[in-house]
Order: sequence, then structure tokens, then C-alpha cells
Amino acid sequence: MRARYVLPDFRIAVVGTGAIGGYYGAKLAYLGRDVHFLVRGDLRRVQRSGIRIRGKAENIRLAKVKCYSATADIGPCDLVLIAVKSTANAALSDLIPPLLHERTMLLTLQNGLGNEEFLARHFGAERVLGGLCFICLNRVSPGVIEHYDHGRLVVGEYNRYPAARTHDISWEFKRCGVVCTVAQNLGLERWRKLVWNVPFNGLAVVTGGLDTAAILARDDLRATALELMDEVIGAANKCGYPLPTAAALDQMKRTETMGAYRPSTLIDFAAGRALEIEAIWGEPLRRGIAAGAEMPRLTALHAQLEAIDQARQHPAK
Amino acid sequence: MRARYVLPDFRIAVVGTGAIGGYYGAKLAYLGRDVHFLVRGDLRRVQRSGIRIRGKAENIRLAKVKCYSATADIGPCDLVLIAVKSTANAALSDLIPPLLHERTMLLTLQNGLGNEEFLARHFGAERVLGGLCFICLNRVSPGVIEHYDHGRLVVGEYNRYPAARTHDISWEFKRCGVVCTVAQNLGLERWRKLVWNVPFNGLAVVTGGLDTAAILARDDLRATALELMDEVIGAANKCGYPLPTAAALDQMKRTETMGAYRPSTLIDFAAGRALEIEAIWGEPLRRGIAAGAEMPRLTALHAQLEAIDQARQHPAK
Repeated sequence: MRARYVLPDFRIAVVGTGAIGGYYGAKLAYLGRDVHFLVRGDLRRVQRSGIRIRGKAENIRLAKVKCYSATADIGPCDLVLIAVKSTANAALSDLIPPLLHERTMLLTLQNGLGNEEFLARHFGAERVLGGLCFICLNRVSPGVIEHYDHGRLVVGEYNRYPAARTHDISWEFKRCGVVCTVAQNLGLERWRKLVWNVPFNGLAVVTGGLDTAAILARDDLRATALELMDEVIGAANKCGYPLPTAAALDQMKRTETMGAYRPSTLIDFAAGRALEIEAIWGEPLRRGIAAGAEMPRLTALHAQLEAIDQARQHPAK
Repeated sequence: MRARYVLPDFRIAVVGTGAIGGYYGAKLAYLGRDVHFLVRGDLRRVQRSGIRIRGKAENIRLAKVKCYSATADIGPCDLVLIAVKSTANAALSDLIPPLLHERTMLLTLQNGLGNEEFLARHFGAERVLGGLCFICLNRVSPGVIEHYDHGRLVVGEYNRYPAARTHDISWEFKRCGVVCTVAQNLGLERWRKLVWNVPFNGLAVVTGGLDTAAILARDDLRATALELMDEVIGAANKCGYPLPTAAALDQMKRTETMGAYRPSTLIDFAAGRALEIEAIWGEPLRRGIAAGAEMPRLTALHAQLEAIDQARQHPAK
């Protein structure tokens, strides 16, 4: 085995122990990796009761969790999983530096576009990798993560071909029971995921809470979803990511088999949390338009989501 | 004066004493017309305290209101103002018959498309007139109507040119201080009003509560409103109503001067009342598509509104 970049005694940090960070971090720790969790609100509970993952296919309890309220207490790590909401990225400027040594790798597991760029800008592009999480999780109480479905992770390099370290990281996840593959072109995969997230996460919110099955049950919403998908594919192409037109129908077919799935943004919305509007809608819209794509439907959807989000943050309005 | 169709001793009924019915009925009664109000929930309060209209430009108290809980107690009238929400049209099949004699005129003051057709189908097309209310009212408590702005009424015949009776009715309203004009083509005016109602009433709801000023403050929502207007104008044209393309910019300019206006559907939404989705969005969409118009944006907006409305009616979902 030539794992030069990820060794058994690697120190791993998880920044943002919500559903995603808690899940993938606990999976690594459960099989013996040295994982250190930054835990904000839930610290006491996680110290006392650990992290629990409950699901159809797995039921894991990580009793002893190395958890911290500040990254300075963790110190330099070899790999950092970043799983705060993209709306909290500004906080990373302070959270990340204590975790860095010269070759620390930063793997963002966040949604949408712009997160790798943020990390590259602040901490150097060569550190940055991205992961796409195809999983349905919900943090139902402090330290308790409900795992509803899927679980696949796709990791890739930021603006580079996969390297030895990319495969090593993928291997580490696989070792711990996570279905993980390496993306040849991370940007392309991010756009491909947006083909789904843009319509379904968005329509779920602007319809007042429809799940995927309810959206698909209406021909008009299905048509709207397809039109949004076409716009995202058009924008991806203009931005140099060759997504085929058929990607829309592919995603539709995949969605048919999902059942009544509540997209992450709908879960955030229902829980009163901030919505990841910039990462999922704003940044793709900005890039698409800058590249000359026409995106009237995404413009309208993005505007609605922003207005809804702002109205929630300033309910007096 | 040749008022053959509307005489001083005409009996007038108001079916639906909400903001619109209460306002225009009280204006007629205040200047001595014989107006009989069907009042459902607020009957006791209106019997005791009358109808009050409060506004910047008027402050009227109609102390003695002839009000009834059933139209059978009113009996045949010469003119019936219909001002129930279009969502309650089914109830009209029972409410209207006791008010009819051979020449009773039915003037619907309801929003959107389809109300004249409903009345024509049930009670004969020759009785039916329509009125468009350009007014901002809110029934703030039983019998108390806040009059925020405007007040113009446009009356016309259903699928016919205006007749002597149309002008007589208009004259009656003018006599009572209402700015009233006669529409040469009622259908055209209904579509013209939709050019405004479709985007602004709709976007106000799907953005979580933005008023007109807040919508106009965002370039993206302004663009979305214009695109919706273009679709409505295209549909009107396909349906045989020659609205010029410039109608969109005209309406936009008019809206700039309105200030922070809360469209009626937003007021209904905030009050938890049913939304007039079919009249304002569903029927125009259906007619437009049947006539060969392309309406992807209206399709999406209508779908969202229906979903939001249904989610409110079945909050368990």
C-alpha cells in the first residue's frame, strides 16, 4: 500500500459537527482514526453521550468523541473536513488557521459553488479538495444523526486532476464503510449536483414545503424543475463544464425512485436555519450570467429564496 | 335624465359584505340608495355598529345597515353586487336565486377571470355585468373597512358592448362619490388588470410577503414581474384581447408611484384566508394555453401558489 498522504496516525479535524460533519467524522473515528471534532452548541451533550448514527442500514454509537469548543485546542491536523453551512464561511477565517501545518489538506464537504474558492483564497489553493455528499441526514438532537438514505461521497481536487492524495482519502473513507469515489473533474460534478439541487431544494421551499414526490406529482412543477435544470446545464456548459442535456432527464428519473425526499434546504427551512442561498443558487447564477447564459427562471427562483430568507431573518418587516 | 335601468327606488343587494362589498354597498347606501347586505360572520356587529369606512380621504359611518343572514330574507332585487371571494363561488348557486326577478342585474366585483362566466352559466348571460375595482381596502374588524388608496371602479357588460343600463349603473356609483367609468370591452380590461395582478399579487406571496416597493427594489424580481407581464399580454392577445406590449411598462411605471402596497392576495395570505388562485392565475393560464400561448413562468408561479395554498389548508402535510 502506497498511502503516502493519508497514514493511519493522521490527525483529522472536523470543523462543523452537524449532520454531515458528525456523520463522516464519526464513520472515520469509529474505525479507529484519530478524529477531532469542533463542536459548538452541542459540546456538553456530545462529551457526555457521544455521537450516535441511526439508520435503516446502520446503527453506530461513537461513545468517546474527542470534541473541542475551539480549534486552537485541536492544533495542527493532516486533514480537515469542513462541514459548516456555507452561510457561516466567514467564521472559517478564524477557525482554520490553528489546524494548519505546512501540508494540511482542507476537504470541504459543503454544498454548492464557491466553497473551494473561499478556502483557496484564504489558505492556498494547493490545500483544497472538495467532497460531494449524496446522502440524506438530519441531526435530530445533539449528537444524534438520523441517516435516511444513500451515503455516497465523491471527492476531488480543486481545479486539478485527482492526485495520489485524492485516492488515498477516498480509500480512507472506503475503509470506514463509506461508498466513495474520486471525481476526475470536481467542478463538473459540482455542476451536475446543482442540476438536482437548484430545482428540488429551491422548489421545496418556494412551494411552502413540498417534498420531491409531491413536486413530481404535479406536471407543472415537474415542468418547472426541468426548465431550471436546462438553465443550470446551459450555464455549466457556458462555464466550460460539459454537462450533456440528458443530465436533466437522468436526474428526473433518479428522483422518481427517491420517494418522498425532503431536500436539505427544506430541512434547514423547517428548522428555521439560514438557507445556503449563495452556494446553491446565487453563485451558479452569477457565474452563468457572467459566462453569457440566460437564466430567467433561476433569477426568479433565487430572488424568491432571498426574499423568503430575508423575511425570516427580519420578521418585523 | 333617462335612467330607465337604475331608478332611485331600485333595490340593491350586496352578496359578500367584506371589504369590497361593504365599501361600495355602503357608498351607495350612504347617499340614500336602498341597499340590502348579506352579512355572514359579522352580522351582530354590523347590526349594532353599522359599517364604518376610514381613510385618508373619507370617513363615513353608515349607522343603520339593512343586513341579513340569508338572501331569502332580502328577496328580489334590481341589482346585485357580488363581492364574495371567487373561491366561494359555489355558494352563489344557492345565495343568488332568492334575489332574482326577471330583470335582476348581477354585477360581479370579484377578481380575475371566470366569475362572469360562472354567473352566466347559472343565471343567464344577459343578467351579467362585471366591475373592476382599483382600490386598496382592508376589512380591519367587523364592519370596519380601512380605505388605503384609490377607489376607481370600471363597469362593463359580459361579452357585450356597454348598454344604457351599464351607463346608468356607472352614473349611480358616480352620484355616490365613486370614480366610475364604463368599459367598452370588459374582457380586455380584465386581462389588463391581470397584467398587474398576476405578477404582483403572486410574487408578494411566493417571496414570503414582499410589498410592491420591496419587489421593485430588487432588479431580479422586477425582471421576473416583467416576464410574467409579457406572458399575460401574450396570452391576452392569443385569446383575442389586443393588449399592447407596452402595457407591461405602463403598469410598471404606475407601480413605481404606489409606494409600499400590499396586494389583496398578500392580505388574504397574511390573514390565513383562501387565495383566489383560480381566478387570478389558474383561469388565465388555462385560457392562454388553450389558445396556444407559452406560459412557463405563469405555470411555475401558479404551481407554487397552489402548493402553498394547499400546504396551508393541510398543515399536517
